Parts: sequence; structure tokens; C-alpha cells
Amino acid sequence: MGSGEFAAIDRIRSLFPDPPPGQVWIGDDAAVLEGGLLVAADAIVAGVHFKYEADPVDVGWRAVAVNVSDIAAMGGRPTALLVTVAAPSHVDLDGLYRGIAAAAQKYSCPVVGGDLTNSETLVVSVTVLGTTDGRHAVLRAGAAPGDIVYVTGPLGGAAASGYHLRPEPRVAEGIESAIKGATSMIDVSDGLAADLGHVLDASRVGVVIDTVPVADGATDEHAWTGGEDYELLFTIRPGVKVDALPIGHIVEDRDKRPPYAHGWEHTFG
Amino acid sequence: MGSGEFAAIDRIRSLFPDPPPGQVWIGDDAAVLEGGLLVAADAIVAGVHFKYEADPVDVGWRAVAVNVSDIAAMGGRPTALLVTVAAPSHVDLDGLYRGIAAAAQKYSCPVVGGDLTNSETLVVSVTVLGTTDGRHAVLRAGAAPGDIVYVTGPLGGAAASGYHLRPEPRVAEGIESAIKGATSMIDVSDGLAADLGHVLDASRVGVVIDTVPVADGATDEHAWTGGEDYELLFTIRPGVKVDALPIGHIVEDRDKRPPYAHGWEHTFG
Repeated sequence: MGSGEFAAIDRIRSLFPDPPPGQVWIGDDAAVLEGGLLVAADAIVAGVHFKYEADPVDVGWRAVAVNVSDIAAMGGRPTALLVTVAAPSHVDLDGLYRGIAAAAQKYSCPVVGGDLTNSETLVVSVTVLGTTDGRHAVLRAGAAPGDIVYVTGPLGGAAASGYHLRPEPRVAEGIESAIKGATSMIDVSDGLAADLGHVLDASRVGVVIDTVPVADGATDEHAWTGGEDYELLFTIRPGVKVDALPIGHIVEDRDKRPPYAHGWEHTFG
Repeated sequence: MGSGEFAAIDRIRSLFPDPPPGQVWIGDDAAVLEGGLLVAADAIVAGVHFKYEADPVDVGWRAVAVNVSDIAAMGGRPTALLVTVAAPSHVDLDGLYRGIAAAAQKYSCPVVGGDLTNSETLVVSVTVLGTTDGRHAVLRAGAAPGDIVYVTGPLGGAAASGYHLRPEPRVAEGIESAIKGATSMIDVSDGLAADLGHVLDASRVGVVIDTVPVADGATDEHAWTGGEDYELLFTIRPGVKVDALPIGHIVEDRDKRPPYAHGWEHTFG
């Protein structure tokens, strides 16, 4: 929605109370509630997040995948979905729900409820529930000076290729990182610059970047600002062996920022 | 969406797996998950559920209230909300979120996450979490011959008055009914005929109606088909003292149906 959205979100946040100790509400990839219950919600909209002529099966898949990625980014495991569909009468609902069902099956999070209604614009809103399975949720805050910064795969491929039709969130990788002690984590949905920026802001630290793995056919700028790769970015103490790509390390100096500082962002929870 | 929606919902349901024993997924007011976790999601859409020129504060309230009512209908207590807003740029977001925050405060269920995005049509989708506080959830299924049928207040007022701007879900009444042993329950959102019909279908029973309490200024038809009153309808064994209005009793003969059998319905979970 552009930069005006940030101001709106700040005003909106001020309307809502803060969580009790041990819980996280608005401001991370997912909320962390009592008992390690994780929950997140994101809507995708025709003409904004996908083209009007997009295959409804892909739209259904994407609506689930972007939400599952938010659970992955907490080091969690998705457990259930609720899906509300607001759709014009010409939309192929069977295709849309086939895509939803395929992603639900792939990520083992059944659709337990939802709503179907008429609308002039197709809006698919998904809420995903998840669990930390007794571990601590990995937040955006927690990166400490000396931590190594990793990404789970090369970046920029989505932007370079016109975006993946069926993004695949990194659930297994997120859980592995959490088990190994990741100190912070986020999914790279808005671009490395923006999402790394969220980790630095939440953790009140800076970063020194050595090298960024760029996907085949993509440029540095794609990797930094393209978004929608749905790889995970995490930080972890040095010396821990992980199956991911190191890109730099965390420093105390908060003025050490990544390049391409302006990505885009459209979520507040 | 009219009668075509029922066919679509039947096809959609066939795509999704059935729940394990002890859980309820699609088909009741809310899903019942492990540990008595309740969850429901409903979207409201400009031009469908409210007028384009509606006060955004009322729209925000309504989006929360209709979801809270689904938790009330299980005999549950709402605990948290997730809200996705897809909105045209001219919408007064501050007003909308003030309405959301007011209802969240009134029903003690804080907004813990969500999403704000651009859209040509205003769609407010809410997911509500709730708890049974260790009791059994009260389902649509469970009404047995001899049970008395109650409603928590007179019906038809919403339809007669042009619909309430700020419906008030009956959370306390739902919990009281559950504690006293209600055998089935539903919220009267689509009209008494349709919603009582859901209870009869799910419970595989019939009903004999004695009298229906009609709200001031409303007609019998308003009461049976108007919808959006958000009173609760429940059944309970005879002889239990409850603070509600009896309208009839359950019989074994499934051919004994209420009058005005065609209401409207737009949810599948």
C-alpha cells in the first residue's frame, strides 16, 4: 500500500493493548499465545497480490503458503487453517479450493473452518494455527553481536522469474534452526533488505554483510528488494553447524545497515 | 450468495478430510480442536453484509461481533482475534479499527495479529479463538426428543428495524446454557427457520413449535426469516430452570419442521 501504510499501522497499533509477559501479539511473523500456540493471518487480493487472470489453483496454494511461511519463521509447525473466501461469481471456486486443499495437505495443516461469501473483488484470507512443540518461538528480536546471519537458500529468484506460482515455505528448515538455537528468525517475503531490517530493528543491532547468494538469473537488486522468495533468514551463535548459507554477522553498531534499505511491507502481524 | 452456494459448499467439503474423534471441523458455528480450543472465521464484505456508506466504526464492530457470536454458540468464551482488512484507499481505517478495538475490549478478546492490504472492495475478515474452559463444546447436534427449545430473546428486531448497527453476541447466556447442560446450540444469525433447521438436521430430530417471541415492531415473518438478531437458540432437558424463552420441544419425527423453511446461509464453518 506504499509508505502511507506505515503511518496507518502505527496508529492502529496504538489502539490495541500490549500482551502479557511470555506472549507476542502484533509485530512478529506470527503471534505467540499461551502454551506455545502460534497464530497468523494474511489476506491476498486480486490485482494486488496476484493477477486477475491468475490460475485459481495457484491463488489457493499461495494464500495458504504465505501463512504457513509465517509459522515456519517462528520455528513452528502448522496445525490448522481457517479460510475465508470473498469472491465474484465468475471465480472458479473448485479450482481455488483445490489449490487450498493441496497446500493444506502438503503442509499437514487441515482446513478446520472458514467462510465463503460474494464480493466484487476476490480476497482470500487465511488464518494459520501452529505449535512450537514445547520449544521457544524464535522471534525477530534476539539477534546478538557476533551471531552469524544465514539464509536457507539463494534469493531474488521470485522477482527475476516473475514470481513463483506455488511458493514453498521452509517449515522443516525453520524447525531445524529453532532446535539448533536460532536467536532470531523471519521469512524473506518482502525482500532481504526489508526483512533483515525488521530483525535488526527488533533486536536493536546492526549487521555486516559479506556476500548474498543470488538465485540463477537474478541480480543483486532482485535478491535485496524482490521479495516473495519465502526463504528463511535466521541468526545463530557462531560455531553451530547448520545447513544454510551464511551472509554476514551481527554487530553492536545499529548504524551498520544493509544496502537497499527501502523494501516494501504490508503486514502488521 | 443464494442457493448456488450450497452446491459449492458441498463440493468444497468433499475436498477436505474429516476430523479425528473428539474434534469438530467444518459444519458447526466454530471448530472444536484439541484441548477445547474453539476457532471460527467469517468475512464481511461491502455491498453484501453492509452498505458501502456504512459508518466504518460500525463495520469494525460488526466484523468482530459476528465472530464472537460463533464462539458464544458453542458455549465458549472468546480469547483472541485476528483481523485482516482489505480496503480501498478512501476507507477511514482509523474508524474501522476503532470499531474493531471497541468490540475486542467489550468481549475481552484482544487483537493479536492480522494484516492490512489494499483492495477495490472493503472486506474485513476476522478469526476468533475461544475456549470451552474445560467444558464440552455445545454442538448443533445433540438435541433429543423431549428437549425444550429456547431462545435467549425476542426475534425479528434486526430485520424490522433495518438491522442493528452494533449487534451484541450473547456470550454470557451461551456459557450459562452450557453450564446448565444445553444439548445443542446455534446463534440465530440467518433467521430462526434456517438456524433451527440446522439444529434439527444435525441432531436428526423434528420440532413442535408452541410460540415464538417476536420483537417490538417485528412480524412473525421477520422473526422466522429475518436473521442477524444474534440471539442464541438452544435445547435442554425439560425441568432445567433457565433464563430464556421457550418456543417448543424436540420430537423424534423428522418430518415435523418449522415454518418458513427457506432462510439464507453463507457460512460453512
